Formats: sequence, C-alpha cells, structure tokens
Amino acid sequence: MTRASVFGVGLGPGCQDLMSVRADRLIRGATHIAYFRKKGKKGHARSIVEGLLAEGVTELAMEYPVTTEIPFDDPRYNQLLASFYEECVAQLMETVEAGASVVVLCEGDPFFYGSFMHLYTRLLSRVPVEVVPGITGMSAAWTATGTPITWGDDVLTVAMATLPEAQLCERIQQTDALVVMKIGRHLGKLRRALKSAGREDDAWLIEYAAMENQRVVPLLDAGEKVPYFSIVLIHGNGRRP
Amino acid sequence: MTRASVFGVGLGPGCQDLMSVRADRLIRGATHIAYFRKKGKKGHARSIVEGLLAEGVTELAMEYPVTTEIPFDDPRYNQLLASFYEECVAQLMETVEAGASVVVLCEGDPFFYGSFMHLYTRLLSRVPVEVVPGITGMSAAWTATGTPITWGDDVLTVAMATLPEAQLCERIQQTDALVVMKIGRHLGKLRRALKSAGREDDAWLIEYAAMENQRVVPLLDAGEKVPYFSIVLIHGNGRRP
Ligand SMILES: C[S@@+](CC[C@H](N)C(=O)[O-])C[C@H]1O[C@@H](n2cnc3c(N)ncnc32)[C@H](O)[C@@H]1O
Ligand SMILES: C[S@@+](CC[C@H](N)C(=O)[O-])C[C@H]1O[C@@H](n2cnc3c(N)ncnc32)[C@H](O)[C@@H]1O
Repeated sequence: MTRASVFGVGLGPGCQDLMSVRADRLIRGATHIAYFRKKGKKGHARSIVEGLLAEGVTELAMEYPVTTEIPFDDPRYNQLLASFYEECVAQLMETVEAGASVVVLCEGDPFFYGSFMHLYTRLLSRVPVEVVPGITGMSAAWTATGTPITWGDDVLTVAMATLPEAQLCERIQQTDALVVMKIGRHLGKLRRALKSAGREDDAWLIEYAAMENQRVVPLLDAGEKVPYFSIVLIHGNGRRP
Repeated sequence: MTRASVFGVGLGPGCQDLMSVRADRLIRGATHIAYFRKKGKKGHARSIVEGLLAEGVTELAMEYPVTTEIPFDDPRYNQLLASFYEECVAQLMETVEAGASVVVLCEGDPFFYGSFMHLYTRLLSRVPVEVVPGITGMSAAWTATGTPITWGDDVLTVAMATLPEAQLCERIQQTDALVVMKIGRHLGKLRRALKSAGREDDAWLIEYAAMENQRVVPLLDAGEKVPYFSIVLIHGNGRRP
C-alpha cells in the first residue's frame, strides 16, 4: 500500500475461504476497516472476516438509518440515504487524508448490485479507490444446486424481484437461464410471475448460498417467507455435446 | 480430502491472487491436476497456477481435438467432442478409482459457460465430484472499467455473440445492463446488432480482464479483431440515491 486509498474488497458469498487470496491478504493487513450494517446488528460482512483481522484494527461500522417508516418511493427515502452515504464518505476520507488506507468489506462482488457503489461514485474524484472483485452470491447459488447455470449460447437474465409483476413475467418468459435476487417481501409476486410464464416448476430457491445454513429446494416446496440471502434461479439447458 | 474425488476448481479471471483461498489451498495440496488446452499450447488454466503446484504433481493435459476443419453445426463436430469428453472422464476416473483426488483447473467460475460442465455431468453418477465457484471473467471485466455494472433494479442480460444478429439486437434493446461473451469472429455481427439497437456508443470492450495485458476501450475505438478473452459490456444506470 503506497498511497493511502480506499479499497472496496469483495468478500465472496459468505464463506471465509471463498474470498480471493488478494482480499484475504488486504483484510489481514488492514489497519482500518469499514462495513455497512443494520443498527443493532453485528453486520454480516463483518462476521465473514471474524478471526482474520489484525490486532488493534480500527473499525468503522456504517449503520443504515432506520428506513422502514418511510416508503421506498418517498423522495425523503432517497434524501435520507444520500446524506447517510455522504457521511460515510466523509469518515472514510478523513482516514485516508490522515495517511491510512481503509478496506471496505463488500458482500459478494462490489460492482454487482452492491452498496459500496454508492460510496465509490462519491469517493472517486476525491481519493484513490481500488476495487477487488469477488465471487457473487449467484455463483454460490448455482454451485449449491449441483447443476451448471448456462450452456452453449444460453441467455442468462439477472432480475430483481422488486420489478413490477408484468415485467418480471416477460423477462422470465424470454430467457433461457434466470437469476432473481432481492426477493424478500416480493416472493408472492415472483411466484405469480413464474407461474404466468409457465416456469414455476423449473425454479429453485437457494437460501444462504455457501453459508452454514445453506438450503436448496424446488421453489414449489418452499414456504411463504424467505431470508434476505435468497436467490431464485432456473438453469439453462443449451446446446451441449 | 477423505474420499478420492474430482474437484472442479474455479481459478477466477486469470490473475493468481484472484482465485479463492479454497482454490489456492486445493491446488497447492493437489497430487493430481488436469486442465484443458489446445494442442501445441501450454494451456491458459495451467499457466495461471504456475508456481503454486507441489513438487512431483501428476499433470493430465486434456487436449481438444482439432476441430477447425469441421463446421460447428456438423453432427460430426458434436460426436468428436462427445468422445473427447468421454476419454477425459475415463482418465479422471482411473485416477480416482486408484484412490487419488484430481483437481480440474477451470477458468472463471466452473458452472458459468465452462468446459468442465461437460465432464461434470458425465462424472456425476460415477465418482464424487465437488465444485468450487470462482470470480467470473465478467466480474473482472466490469471491475476493469471502473464503473459498477448494475444498480437498483437494473436487469442484466448475459448473451453470447454466437447468437443470430436479430436475437442479439433484441436482447440488447431490452436490457439495462449487458454482458456479451464468446465474441471472436462474431465481432462484426455484434457491432451491427449494437448499432441497430442504438447502443453502440455505450459499449465497452475489455480484453484480458484482470490479466497482465488487460485493455479497456470504448467499442467504437476498438479494432477489427479481438482475442479469445474479450467481453463487451454496457453499464446499467438504475435508481440510486
Ligand atoms: C444488494 S444485493 C448484493 C449482491 C452482491 N454484491 C453479490 O455480488 O452477490 C443482495 C442480494 O444478493 C443475493 N445474495 C447475495 N449473496 C447471497 C448468498 N450468499 N445467498 C443467497 N443470496 C445471496 C440476495 O438475493 C440478496 O437479496
Ligand atoms: C467458455 S466461456 C468461460 C467463462 C468462464 N467460465 C467465466 O466464469 O468467466 C469463455 C468466454 O468468457 C469470457 N472471458 C472469460 N474470462 C475472461 C477474461 N479474464 N477477460 C475477458 N474475457 C473473459 C470471454 O468472452 C470468453 O470468450
């Protein structure tokens, strides 16, 4: 580490030995780490690195403002988050300007629907930033099913369950292989979309991929609730010798 | 390693320290490794692990039969490949049945358009097989551009340039973020499809992502030929606070 920088480091899907050798080295060598977490929680990213950190490391826990009272499409929601991210950036910059690098722990791959991206775009013009890619949650999910996700010239569509039902349905109909993330309270809608697209039978639910409590079930056999770390997928079936 | 098994191990995109800690451990500890390569070449997967292997490791180079004379859609092409894969499987099984595990080196993530999948489906009912996911080439590619690939509820479409032009064009039109792989001699077609979809200006070409000769250019500024390790992508632009 020559110039003090912010490192956005992909941790992979949640199992310590699925992080990259580079991530492992950066995390073990860090004097300053930072990570997002919900208020009152330890933080999932933080728990992945348990036991790796150097003694005396300085930790910055970036706690999401409580947002459940404000609906998602209320402009105040965005304002609240934007000022939260600005605060985080100010804290990271303070450390870097004092001459120390900070490693920001990112679940999965930082540039793939990651929260770090919101800090990244704000830091970019101000301090050196480096990003270390990671194994995505979806790679862990399809590995957990024991079946390859894409063959030959299969098209893979990655969609968020937050999309409107009609759009979800269309995407599901048009693709060979499918990955759906951010399911949470959208499970019912996702089920209906899969059903209208005629593909509910082919869908698998993977909870906590690559973590201790990993669970793989046909979506038809799943219950009515899924945890935050859940992915629904349909395998491609393309050309193969 | 308790039971002798075949391990399909993701190496990540091509830089040694982007493989997972688990992959690194398995490869260093391997007594037997196997990898695909073209006849007369060292093999890209093999070159990634240079310097990691234990002394005296047994290497099985699985050399693709020369296929350039037979067109892709000729049934003999498939037959040739199928019997090649059967041979590889027989060799791997011989080692496992003699009591030793074999680590098969896989570029990127094994279950994501990987060649190992062809061995995997054939091995599955016969010997224990374990797969270790890896960082994909596309993760390295978008990291190389310095810009996140997907935000909010962006849809990501992954398509192969081997698709017919009209299909490519439609996919490009309909998606937020795009990744195109297997470009090779399909570059001209891909360019036309991007242009008809009105998105040629937004496309980036990444050659050799995460490797020594990595190169990132707007597709408009790229030449007429691209190497095997090339990805074209368009960044998503979704909701963000
Ligand atoms: C904000 S996105 C972050 C994605 C992350 N950057 C990645 O590369 O996987 C969070 C969503 O990713 C999915 N996810 C990530 N890791 C997962 C895992 N290990 N198991 C199941 N789902 C996971 C879930 O759908 C979750 O809602
Ligand atoms: C047969 S697919 C294998 C994909 C691999 N299993 C993965 O997870 O990335 C080969 C294609 O992947 C893309 N690719 C893989 N690694 C790459 C890299 N490091 N840089 C650029 N392209 C890459 C290229 O488009 C190439 O034609």
